Formats: sequence, C-alpha cells, structure tokens
Amino acid sequence: MENNKRYESGLRAMEELFSPEVRTGMEEMKKISPDFWEMIVSSGFGDLYGRNTLSHAQREIITLTTLITQGAFDQLRVHLQAALNVGLTKEEIIEIIIHCVGYVGFPKAVQAMGIAGEVFEEAK
Amino acid sequence: MENNKRYESGLRAMEELFSPEVRTGMEEMKKISPDFWEMIVSSGFGDLYGRNTLSHAQREIITLTTLITQGAFDQLRVHLQAALNVGLTKEEIIEIIIHCVGYVGFPKAVQAMGIAGEVFEEAK
Amino acid sequence: MENNKRYESGLRAMEELFSPEVRTGMEEMKKISPDFWEMIVSSGFGDLYGRNTLSHAQREIITLTTLITQGAFDQLRVHLQAALNVGLTKEEIIEIIIHCVGYVGFPKAVQAMGIAGEVFEEAK
Amino acid sequence: MENNKRYESGLRAMEELFSPEVRTGMEEMKKISPDFWEMIVSSGFGDLYGRNTLSHAQREIITLTTLITQGAFDQLRVHLQAALNVGLTKEEIIEIIIHCVGYVGFPKAVQAMGIAGEVFEEAK
Amino acid sequence: MENNKRYESGLRAMEELFSPEVRTGMEEMKKISPDFWEMIVSSGFGDLYGRNTLSHAQREIITLTTLITQGAFDQLRVHLQAALNVGLTKEEIIEIIIHCVGYVGFPKAVQAMGIAGEVFEEAK
Amino acid sequence: MENNKRYESGLRAMEELFSPEVRTGMEEMKKISPDFWEMIVSSGFGDLYGRNTLSHAQREIITLTTLITQGAFDQLRVHLQAALNVGLTKEEIIEIIIHCVGYVGFPKAVQAMGIAGEVFEEAK
Repeated sequence: MENNKRYESGLRAMEELFSPEVRTGMEEMKKISPDFWEMIVSSGFGDLYGRNTLSHAQREIITLTTLITQGAFDQLRVHLQAALNVGLTKEEIIEIIIHCVGYVGFPKAVQAMGIAGEVFEEAK
Repeated sequence: MENNKRYESGLRAMEELFSPEVRTGMEEMKKISPDFWEMIVSSGFGDLYGRNTLSHAQREIITLTTLITQGAFDQLRVHLQAALNVGLTKEEIIEIIIHCVGYVGFPKAVQAMGIAGEVFEEAK
Repeated sequence: MENNKRYESGLRAMEELFSPEVRTGMEEMKKISPDFWEMIVSSGFGDLYGRNTLSHAQREIITLTTLITQGAFDQLRVHLQAALNVGLTKEEIIEIIIHCVGYVGFPKAVQAMGIAGEVFEEAK
Repeated sequence: MENNKRYESGLRAMEELFSPEVRTGMEEMKKISPDFWEMIVSSGFGDLYGRNTLSHAQREIITLTTLITQGAFDQLRVHLQAALNVGLTKEEIIEIIIHCVGYVGFPKAVQAMGIAGEVFEEAK
Repeated sequence: MENNKRYESGLRAMEELFSPEVRTGMEEMKKISPDFWEMIVSSGFGDLYGRNTLSHAQREIITLTTLITQGAFDQLRVHLQAALNVGLTKEEIIEIIIHCVGYVGFPKAVQAMGIAGEVFEEAK
Repeated sequence: MENNKRYESGLRAMEELFSPEVRTGMEEMKKISPDFWEMIVSSGFGDLYGRNTLSHAQREIITLTTLITQGAFDQLRVHLQAALNVGLTKEEIIEIIIHCVGYVGFPKAVQAMGIAGEVFEEAK
C-alpha cells in the first residue's frame, strides 16, 4: 500500500469508528506534531483497521481488552463509543469486561465498567 | 448457579478449550492448593467461559489480547492452542497479534508472534 | 460454600471494610450489570475476604500493595479507608508505601503517599 | 557519599530540574512522612541525578520514557517541565514520544503527547 | 543513618532473609557494577528491611504481592524462600496468592502458585 | 516517505543496530507472517530509527528504558547489543539501569543488570 493510501485508509477507518466531535478532538494532535498525527492516522488506524480478516467489531473487542488490561481509561472511553458505533451491543461490551475480570482482576474491570455505564448513558 | 454447578460448568469449558494433556498439567495445581484449584475451575472457567452472550472463539480473542498485553507468555501458549481448538484460524490469530502492535508496541507483539509460530508448527 | 453463602459472606466482608457511603457508591454497579455486581460481592469479596488464614488487616496489606503496583489509584483511595477501618495504623500504611518504593519506584509510591495524606486528613 | 551529602546532592539536583513552585508542591510530602521525604531527596534525586556518566538531559530522556511506559502521567507533566529546564528541546521531546510508539503503542503515546502539548503551551 | 550504617543494615537484613547460597549468587552483581551492588544493599535492603513499624514477615507479604503483580517471577522465587525463612507458613503464602487472584487475575496467580509449589518442595 | 522507502529505511537501521546473526534470527518472523515482518521493518525500524532529531545512541537509551520498564527482557538482550553497536559505552548502559531503579524499583533493574553483565561478557 502506498503511503497516502495508508493515510486515506486510516481516515476512512476513523470515520467508521468515531463521531465527528471525537475526530475533531483527535485532530488537535496535528498542532503539536504533524508527524505524530500522520503516524496515528496511517499506522494507528490505516495499518490496523484498514486490514481484512477481522471485522471492525472484532477489532474493537481486541482494543477494549488491551485498553482495560493496560489501564488506559481515557482511551477506553472513546473506544467504548466506537464499539457501539461498529455494532457491538451493550450486552456484549459488559460481557467483555466481565470476561476480563478473570485475567486482570477486579480493580481494572470495575473502573472499566463504571466508564461503560457513563458511555451507555450518553448513548441513550 | 449453585456452587457445584459452577465447578461442573468450569470443567466442561476446560474440556472444550484444552487437550487432555494440558488439563492433566493444570491439575497439578490441585496438589499445591485444592482451594486454589477449585477457584480456577469455578471462577476462572465456570464463571467466565460458562456464560452466554459471547462465543468461546470471541472469549479467546479477549483472552489472547489480555495475555499479550500483560506479557503472560506461558499462559499465552496454552490459550493459543485453545484458540485453535475453538475454531479461530491461524490467519485470525496472526491478525489479533498484528492489531495489538498499535496498542502494546512491538516487543510484546513480536514475542507473541514467535510463540504463535511454534504453536502453529506443533498443531500441524 | 453454596452460592448465596458466597454472596452473604461478601456482603459481610464489605460491611467490615467500607463505610455505608462507600458501599452505596459501589452498588451503582448493580444498575449497569447485576451479574457483575454479583461477581464483585461473591468472588471479589466473599471468596477472598471471607476466607481464614489471613486477617482483614493482612489482606489489606496485600490489597494496598497490589493497587500501588498496578497504579490503580482510584481503588487505592477506598482501600486506604478500609485499611484504617480494619485496624492498620497511619504509621503502618506509610511504611507499606515506603517499602513499595524499592519494588515499584518513586512515581507510584509518591502518587500513593499523596492520596494517603488526603485519606488521613479526611479520617481525622 | 555520607548521608547528609546525599540529601544535599538531591536538593541541588531538584533545584536544577524543577521550578520553585514545583519544589514547594513536592515538599508537601514532608508533612505526611518526613522519612519518605528524606528518601525522595536522597535516593530519588541525590543517588540518581547526583551521579556522573550521564547528563541531566540524558537522565530526563530515561525518566520521560519510563514514565510514559508505566503510564505515570502526573509525574510525566512535572518531568516534561524538567526536561525543558535541563535543555531538551520541544522537538527532541516530541521525538522521544514518537519513538515510544513502537515500544508501548499509541494509547500511552497519545496521552503523553497531549500532556506535552499543554506543557509546551505553558512554557511559552 | 550514616552511609556505612545503611550498608551494614542491608547486609544484616539479607542474612536474615536469604540463605548463604542465595546471597553468594546475588553478590555476582558486584562484579558488573560495584555502585549498583552498594545501592541494592543500602537502598534495597538497608533502607527498607532495616526499618521498624513492620516485621520482616509483614514486609515479605508486601514483597510477594508486588512481585506477583508486576510479574517478576525470578525475584518471586527468591522471596518465596525468604518468606519461609522469616516465618510465613506455607498456608499463609498460598493464601496471599489466592487473595491476589481478585486483584491481578488468574494468569499471574497461577504462575506464582506453580513457583510456590516448587519452592515448597525444595524446602521440605 | 513512500512505502518501499520506509521498508528500505528500516532495513538500513537494522543493519546499523544489529549483527547479521541477530538479523537472520529476526527474519524467521517472515515465515510466520510476511505482513507482520513488513510492519516490523517499516513501522518498527523505518518510521522510528529512520527519523532525525535523535541519534541512534539516544534512541537506544529510550529503547533500553522502555524494555526494562515493561519487563521485556528477551528484547532487552538484543537491544543491549545494539546499544553497544551504536556507541553507548558499558558505563553508560550500567548508568541507565541504575537511573531506572528509582523509577521501576529493584526487581526489574536487577534482572536487567544481570542480562547486561552477560551481554558485556559476550561482547569482550
């Protein structure tokens, strides 16, 4: 894939995952470092969500799990919204967090479930 | 769910996930602490893999991801085998690890892919 | 232990550890997922704090240490209160954090000590 | 090095790294635990930044990297200021964060870059 | 405490915690970096285990917990031996690991219990 | 940068960092997943070590630090060799590990120093 194709593929993935508000917020990064912004779009989205073999919904299962496991709760909020946007149900998201309990323990799962509750409330 | 039902549900899940050899190895834990063994079966398997809403294959996507993220590579080997047993393809497993790169970085992803290569070789 | 015994044992442990206000806050989880609430009470408290061999004070030494090590500072605040409730002294809690420095480094220990200072102030 | 020399060396390093406001904030720790304060100054600064072989700027490259990797973002803010104070440029700091992407993934790097943007803004 | 007192206090703590064989192994570090060896003894043992307020047994509860939480299993083996040496029973150590399940999940607890089983076997 | 330029830049960086033996070992990954190999070379090396602003030696300071912090000790061994190859001295590497003690604690630093001792021995 050529480089501007990677970037375009990343932008397309971001449109499928995030609301316009979230994307505008993310673009703030461009002002701090245009190179970093390019990496986010091309490597962080184009090279991952632009691939086949797994659906966006399956990719969000992975993303939610790794964010819970590493305690990246600010990013988790945005990807909980993305998970709903690409078709995971509220029940499936709750079940992902419940499954994580056995692998990461209660503190991170409880924190994640609290944030999920807030995201579900906003999404009503 | 009553308590011996939790245990039975856990045993059943373990049979669906692991080969007899792997399960025999896991049972060694019973000798060190019967209480801990009971928790592994009832809480670690029964309370998680015994639930609905997500398939075993979806649960293994979560499990592989959290193990890669926390660098639990001994457990990862066993769950890579389980992932194949419950129907994830080699291509999907590789794709899970590739997706993780963007979230955990190359060191853990490289380590995971190396182990996956070994498990695929043994599974031939 | 039967399943409603696990739940009751968990509720009893939570009463010994936390103030009514904290417990009411925790119960919010019930609205997001009743199943997850049941796991918190039965597995997270009943199966752990409902056991013998270690006292509640010893269990809070473990809990504070793991929360500091994994950087779970929201949960740490609540368990610092619990630690005082089950009889650990301010001096012992400070000493736990000091001991952790050698094992997790200053950033997490400093963060923990700052929160401990706030909890001690509130507990006056 | 004698013990009061370790403490003095730590205080000197802190003066070279942090603004008076930041140092006054840090001294709050003295009220919670004078022993812990002594450890911060002597072990956390004197025994590390008081050594030779690496410059303060090189030490801040290490410090920023470990804080990003462990997700210690409160401490990161203070050390981003320190990094500027000891002569790392805005461009070099951005480059440190970009290099980290490959090793820790985007979530922590994005969080770090956002905080760096705020610190750069304040430092104008 | 003067500096050679810190070192002596550290050596004394190490004698109380570890067998002569283990200590001889640790001293290998002296050949790689005498300064690092001095830090291990003075800061890692003297400044921590040389303090009061908590007993050696209580300190090993903290040490075991943080090592399990961060997945430092090589160090865990040595401190499981130390825990037995300072009077923690096999039952208490098993209970520490069981308590950790709720906070760090099964993968790390299972790994820890396996190593504990080996250390108990060797200690017979 | 066009895509085959990213790949070429990555290969060039790998030649500057690693011995032919190490690179041959790394290429094994190509057999498991050619796509993953392309990401390692282009994103993991080309997009990072192929950039300016920081020297290879500075980049290895970052790399060593993040690997120590996340406990990625297999990768650490290879990058300790790379650090020597790009001009960091044995004394500087020891000093990086010593600086890390204050930020990650002794367990990871001790593990890292032991591996450094082995790498130094092999490099004689």
